[in-house]
Amino acid sequence: MTRYTFVDNINKLLSDDKWLISQDRYDKKLNQRYETNFTLANGYMGVRGSFEEGSDDECPGNYIAGIFDKSEAQVRELVNVQNWVGIKVYVNGKNLNPDKCEILDFIRILDMKHGILFRGITLKDDSGMITHIEGYRFLSKHNIHRAAIKLFITPVNYSGTIAIENIIDGSVLNSKENPAQKTKHLRIVENTNFVNGGCYLETATRDDDTRIGTGFYVKIYRSDDGNNIVKHKRFAPLGEISSEYYEFDVTENKTVEVDKFVSTYTSRDVSKEKIKSEVEKDVYNFASEGIDNELLKHIEIYEKLWNVANIKIEGDDEADKALRFNVFHLMSSVNESDHRVSIAAKALHGEGYKGHVFWDTEIFMLPFFIYVYPKAAKTLLMYRYNLLDAARQNAIRNGYKGAQYPWESADTGNEETPQWGLDYKGNPVRIWTGDIEYHITADIAFAVFEYYRATDDIDFMLEYGIEMILETARFWISRCEYNSSLDRYEINDVIGPDEFHEHVSNNSYTNYLARWNIQKAIEFVEILKKDYPSTYEMLSSKICLTEDELENWGDIIPKIYIPFDKEKRF
Amino acid sequence: MTRYTFVDNINKLLSDDKWLISQDRYDKKLNQRYETNFTLANGYMGVRGSFEEGSDDECPGNYIAGIFDKSEAQVRELVNVQNWVGIKVYVNGKNLNPDKCEILDFIRILDMKHGILFRGITLKDDSGMITHIEGYRFLSKHNIHRAAIKLFITPVNYSGTIAIENIIDGSVLNSKENPAQKTKHLRIVENTNFVNGGCYLETATRDDDTRIGTGFYVKIYRSDDGNNIVKHKRFAPLGEISSEYYEFDVTENKTVEVDKFVSTYTSRDVSKEKIKSEVEKDVYNFASEGIDNELLKHIEIYEKLWNVANIKIEGDDEADKALRFNVFHLMSSVNESDHRVSIAAKALHGEGYKGHVFWDTEIFMLPFFIYVYPKAAKTLLMYRYNLLDAARQNAIRNGYKGAQYPWESADTGNEETPQWGLDYKGNPVRIWTGDIEYHITADIAFAVFEYYRATDDIDFMLEYGIEMILETARFWISRCEYNSSLDRYEINDVIGPDEFHEHVSNNSYTNYLARWNIQKAIEFVEILKKDYPSTYEMLSSKICLTEDELENWGDIIPKIYIPFDKEKRF
Repeated sequence: MTRYTFVDNINKLLSDDKWLISQDRYDKKLNQRYETNFTLANGYMGVRGSFEEGSDDECPGNYIAGIFDKSEAQVRELVNVQNWVGIKVYVNGKNLNPDKCEILDFIRILDMKHGILFRGITLKDDSGMITHIEGYRFLSKHNIHRAAIKLFITPVNYSGTIAIENIIDGSVLNSKENPAQKTKHLRIVENTNFVNGGCYLETATRDDDTRIGTGFYVKIYRSDDGNNIVKHKRFAPLGEISSEYYEFDVTENKTVEVDKFVSTYTSRDVSKEKIKSEVEKDVYNFASEGIDNELLKHIEIYEKLWNVANIKIEGDDEADKALRFNVFHLMSSVNESDHRVSIAAKALHGEGYKGHVFWDTEIFMLPFFIYVYPKAAKTLLMYRYNLLDAARQNAIRNGYKGAQYPWESADTGNEETPQWGLDYKGNPVRIWTGDIEYHITADIAFAVFEYYRATDDIDFMLEYGIEMILETARFWISRCEYNSSLDRYEINDVIGPDEFHEHVSNNSYTNYLARWNIQKAIEFVEILKKDYPSTYEMLSSKICLTEDELENWGDIIPKIYIPFDKEKRF
Repeated sequence: MTRYTFVDNINKLLSDDKWLISQDRYDKKLNQRYETNFTLANGYMGVRGSFEEGSDDECPGNYIAGIFDKSEAQVRELVNVQNWVGIKVYVNGKNLNPDKCEILDFIRILDMKHGILFRGITLKDDSGMITHIEGYRFLSKHNIHRAAIKLFITPVNYSGTIAIENIIDGSVLNSKENPAQKTKHLRIVENTNFVNGGCYLETATRDDDTRIGTGFYVKIYRSDDGNNIVKHKRFAPLGEISSEYYEFDVTENKTVEVDKFVSTYTSRDVSKEKIKSEVEKDVYNFASEGIDNELLKHIEIYEKLWNVANIKIEGDDEADKALRFNVFHLMSSVNESDHRVSIAAKALHGEGYKGHVFWDTEIFMLPFFIYVYPKAAKTLLMYRYNLLDAARQNAIRNGYKGAQYPWESADTGNEETPQWGLDYKGNPVRIWTGDIEYHITADIAFAVFEYYRATDDIDFMLEYGIEMILETARFWISRCEYNSSLDRYEINDVIGPDEFHEHVSNNSYTNYLARWNIQKAIEFVEILKKDYPSTYEMLSSKICLTEDELENWGDIIPKIYIPFDKEKRF
């Protein structure tokens, strides 16, 4: 097995530039941008590319798919959970803070081919001591609960004492830079150390008591002989922060390695009582298997994905890499095994749009998955199917029938769009999308059909898809308004797909897709009746669909007004 | 009543330079030094001069006399409790951070005459908006539970929206910059808001469940008409931080005033159940009385103190001010009403020496109080009297008799000197002072006598002082070692008052003061027998002092070896 280290592979990596996103200069002001670009995710969780040593100008984030909470926020939002990235380095007792040192050398590289974030930095502190730190981190695609950080620390021009502080930071907030919205979603349940070393921090969401347990174990050893060199170790539960501290002697130009093995389990995965023991077991297994072992399995998965997903654009290197960057983050954001989560507008990469799922998922992201990763595409649609009951409740709440999907969707399927926002002057602004951007409901029906069209997955349609198309069709029938003077059905007071013009009547996109939705429902009923009569019987009984109702749909369809049909604007 | 504002009084203040300590240039690197110099204290609590807006280069501290905790620290230490200083200002949604703005103007002035810390700062943010902030804070000497901050905020060249975030920060640690020692002493008990606005944070020390409740109420109004201008207000319990947020419109060049009324009660003051209601009552009373009202009463007390304590050194302005600075901090550090606390080596001004009381208090600080503030001097001695039983236990623990005072004393009177420290390389260093720097016990007896000599407070002596002198004498008798070959009593293996030479035998200072201590004990017994026979009977019975024992003391005294007596080295 090859040792996968930055040192050994840097040249090989750099020679393959089309797979790399690099940052070769440190600029505090760009920290948050690079944090987003350098986010790693494995579908289960996502960790923003903040620095191990921290900086005031960053917005670290660690998000677990499906973990939402409201507390004092406007709506339920994807929770920024405890962060395990922190590793502080102290040279002869003084914190090695890049913001207070001379930076002699700096690089970060996102290796998209393997899903690894590399870094290197050489710092000169105000005593003239030069320390070189390099390493990498990854969130395993093989065991989605695992993540690791490896650092190589070299005292370039001194011998002395280095200390390391490893933390899990549970003091995190959402919207931490916005005092009008910042929200604490977690309470600390347990802050302790494992019997044989390492830290454990368990938190709970404040509304639902969803538990999140994060643990780590750290090995520190000399590169040349692999010997453990820690001479002093201390655990301290610092309130919301779990911290383990290690001191060791270093020799000029001799490299020391720090391996941080991290595992995360939540009460979405196992029962509350088992979280800690699962984390502890996994952390220790991980530590005994070693980072390289997990990393190779992780790389294998990315290689398989890229074998299908890679797209080359010849003659335009920038577009070629930009497309690969998008594909990388899409592939990193999906968890094909979890039918209770989808991909948010900002994926697991940040707090923008509060981790909510919009029409973007079905219209912009799903086609990628349908063609390169259909199992994941099905998972994304299953998220909507699992929230079909909530969509039914949503329709009832708004005075309609069938199923109306929320404009912004989190874990419950309730409408999560805030009704009010604030402009930059702090004046309230009414947000209408949750009330009237109805087209999301047809978008989802359309996505179901797109998936079927490409995959011929009739089992999915029989079990889930057709029910969604029927119930969304039923919504549209109830949403249409009959204009008797023009003898047509209209859909008034909506927001169309441009998302900015509010209170529009008879938006082409909306009306067209509504009609399409009802039409497809009727077509599938015909197929069911013909080829799957027992399914039809079961389903029509389950959703109380009668021949009369279907006849009514058939009557309405030709009378739904589609502006461009007549005006030929398109 | 005059409005006591920085604006009105700045010229008057600056004309009286000998009462002022000023900082006229902002330098991050000097933050911690100025924080110490600009600490305000009222004997009950002390607050370091950190900035309301915060800075990464500061070490904020808020200490309450008598509140100690060990947790993961080496020994019990003065707890850095929740900090109420934080006030963040946001201009058009952006945090006004001095470290990220151009500082057009800066001043801080410690007004020693009145015990007030003034400040002024003019900041230009990266949008070119200029904001002037000035104001002051004080910890009331009149009602020691109260503190207040007043800010005047002026948008110099813009109209827009300003927001204020007021916090109580319970995420504080002791030794926060030292990862090998940093310790969380508090758990959060309650983080809530008062029904009519304002925040309340209650914490508890982790070892003893000593409760600390801090609350505030904030008024924000226009200077010209006094009208409340808040248009949006939000409370958020951010885990260990309690936060209240206010938004308001501002007009170019029109000043807005922010009054933060703070109150602190602990379970040392009232029962646990009553802390919150006491704080709430006090905060609201304070807010309705207004800052100026409390400030005038506070100033009155400082004026009375200075009438006795001020010392003028003519011809040397620097020495004149430096002495005043020392007197100011001494006077600010004592609480004459609390017999359970003394003044630590670093007073209430920082974490150095962990808030422990050393011989410094009796030998270096007490003389000042004896002559200018004898009631406070008595309080400091009462702290030792109240820990006489602990000193008796300490003697027993070490194999001696009588009372042996600890080298480092906190709240329990147990020896709090850590046995091991770490040098800058992280190597353990044995600390011997707690084992063998015995002279503290004679220093305290000496201080008792010094107090009596100046005050003639015979009541104090009869009730407390003589008992202390007798019990410390008894300790010395048990500590002396008879050298039969030289027919003398020796005190071997000690650390003398230079505190650096360890394992010294027959240190002159120690031996001399030990002999003096025993001698004084015998003298007081004679006085008691002659003038206060019933007290003598009561006391000798209480401490089981027999004629035989006293005779033995008399025999030993002339044989205690004092090096300089014979060698005439002094």
